[in-house]
Amino acid sequence: MPAATVRFEALKAFIQSAFLSQGLPEADATQVASLMAEADLQGSDGHGVIRLPQYIKRIRAGGINIHPDIKVVRERAAMAVVDGDNGMGHLVVSKAVDLAIAKARDTGVAWVSTRMSNHAGPASLYARKPLQHDMLGLYFAVGNANHLPPWGGMDMLLSTNPISAGVPAAEEPPVVLDMATTVAAYGKVKAKAKAGAMMPEGWMIDRQGKPLLDPNRSGEGFLLPIGGHKGYGLALIVGLLAGTLGGAAMGRDVIDFNADHVSVTNTGQAILVIDLAAFGDPQDFKHAVDKLVRDLRGAERLPGVERIWLPGEQSHQRRQQYAATGIPLSAGVVADLTTLAGELGIAPLV
Amino acid sequence: MPAATVRFEALKAFIQSAFLSQGLPEADATQVASLMAEADLQGSDGHGVIRLPQYIKRIRAGGINIHPDIKVVRERAAMAVVDGDNGMGHLVVSKAVDLAIAKARDTGVAWVSTRMSNHAGPASLYARKPLQHDMLGLYFAVGNANHLPPWGGMDMLLSTNPISAGVPAAEEPPVVLDMATTVAAYGKVKAKAKAGAMMPEGWMIDRQGKPLLDPNRSGEGFLLPIGGHKGYGLALIVGLLAGTLGGAAMGRDVIDFNADHVSVTNTGQAILVIDLAAFGDPQDFKHAVDKLVRDLRGAERLPGVERIWLPGEQSHQRRQQYAATGIPLSAGVVADLTTLAGELGIAPLV
Repeated sequence: MPAATVRFEALKAFIQSAFLSQGLPEADATQVASLMAEADLQGSDGHGVIRLPQYIKRIRAGGINIHPDIKVVRERAAMAVVDGDNGMGHLVVSKAVDLAIAKARDTGVAWVSTRMSNHAGPASLYARKPLQHDMLGLYFAVGNANHLPPWGGMDMLLSTNPISAGVPAAEEPPVVLDMATTVAAYGKVKAKAKAGAMMPEGWMIDRQGKPLLDPNRSGEGFLLPIGGHKGYGLALIVGLLAGTLGGAAMGRDVIDFNADHVSVTNTGQAILVIDLAAFGDPQDFKHAVDKLVRDLRGAERLPGVERIWLPGEQSHQRRQQYAATGIPLSAGVVADLTTLAGELGIAPLV
Repeated sequence: MPAATVRFEALKAFIQSAFLSQGLPEADATQVASLMAEADLQGSDGHGVIRLPQYIKRIRAGGINIHPDIKVVRERAAMAVVDGDNGMGHLVVSKAVDLAIAKARDTGVAWVSTRMSNHAGPASLYARKPLQHDMLGLYFAVGNANHLPPWGGMDMLLSTNPISAGVPAAEEPPVVLDMATTVAAYGKVKAKAKAGAMMPEGWMIDRQGKPLLDPNRSGEGFLLPIGGHKGYGLALIVGLLAGTLGGAAMGRDVIDFNADHVSVTNTGQAILVIDLAAFGDPQDFKHAVDKLVRDLRGAERLPGVERIWLPGEQSHQRRQQYAATGIPLSAGVVADLTTLAGELGIAPLV
């Protein structure tokens, strides 16, 4: 049972007023609020309004530049590097994606890297942005805290570096993948702790290499990468592409933004946009995706499996449902936002 | 103990003579032989000379066009689609990679898709080709047999669709990832069967969803994707990028080239090349990779772990070792190649 259900517009307006209270320019506050509320709208509730208190804390501590000069610092026909000047990540990545879309229209494919960016919410928000232009998006990001050691090691030098892809279909929902390169994202560990539940084997190990099941002991262990050494390799490559390539932080240089609200994170992200029209008729591609989606969904199922899902199909359904009936918020989130509203002197959300 | 050890040049010459005996033009036979021997040189022994009998069988059955007109059929500044005219995959992908490198030099980033291609050997051969130009490669391919159902399903509609990345370093070996999106590649299952060993839990499940451990019963079950639904999503996205986007086979249309030597496979691959010089001084990037590599390798180790490896480090060592002392071949491979030499009327390898 959610503690409250709020409309997308009400959630967006609340977030916006929180940022306006901190002096963000109106257009920036609107853009960030819109993306954060969209995260909750699609059920990415670990990356939506739940992050607002932390973002505000960082702004108040001087860890975010609220008047950034976000600009292109390197450029060729099919690429650019955007320096975010330590502004809100949502603004920096949005600019990068818009630029990649514009470039891909000319060159067919374009890559834009960010540096001096910040946490920008769920990866899929950005990978799906090209969809409306009949383009395909592939997004990589360096996570904002290191929880993953190299395979066989114990020093947490890597983050859960996510990969996201947005692929348009014709009549079917788009195929939208958004995955951490660890078996569980760290937010899921926190959620288990909050729920008083144990973690399944395979999420974390302790310093002896043994399964760690108690989420309250998560500080004593490490997340496990998907597929063992494969996920370690994937997290590393994603970090090289999203961080090192564009001149952003990677490895030891990554700031734990949960613990440190002041240091510049120099977060890096990268978006690759592919214009379907360069490869053929976008309608042909989208119909081929429809057919594939239907083949996969219609596959014979293992005993006990009720339905085969496509990546992004559940968040697509939530978008429609929550747009119609409102976005559910847990009691904990409502309490945190009410406290925040009091601190900022803005009208409470519920 | 290997049954034989052969020099790279001897292996290449043998493969070349096999293709020449089938009428491949000399330059093509040389190029394919060089790439196949390079696969064995780096220890990718499931994708090197071991495939020669199968390739020859396909050529003799008319399933490969030995005089293909490999050409660009779609093009923009930063992309192209190469139609391989059902030629050997090694030739088609090599042309695609060379074109992507040339384009990336201008536009910073370039993507080339193939269609009407064929099996081309280990993904890493192509992802690492841009390294010598201070460029970074990212490679996707549709596997040549479907062994993976959608998550929760039993119809094998997906292949082990690999991802490979090649990232240059300064003094350290390049970081080269080459991974199937399943826990085990199908070749590893075959190897267990050949060795009379059981598979570990987690590689395959049967039609009840229970672990399948006997490799001789592999036909009764399915490979498992890395990270459960995540690896399923990744295999799907890789297939959409490498297959559907360029107009190549994906899903139901994929031909099992182990069972069918005649049907045109319409294999698809895709290469993304990123020119480091577009993003800054390539030396700075490569030194940052060195530092990261050393941090990871030097991490504190779990009990019992002797060494932390970087992706591609073991194959890098094998390249150096096998170049110096020769490439080891198993008794089974030597026997197959001796039989093949007899059939083709060429000099045996050993």
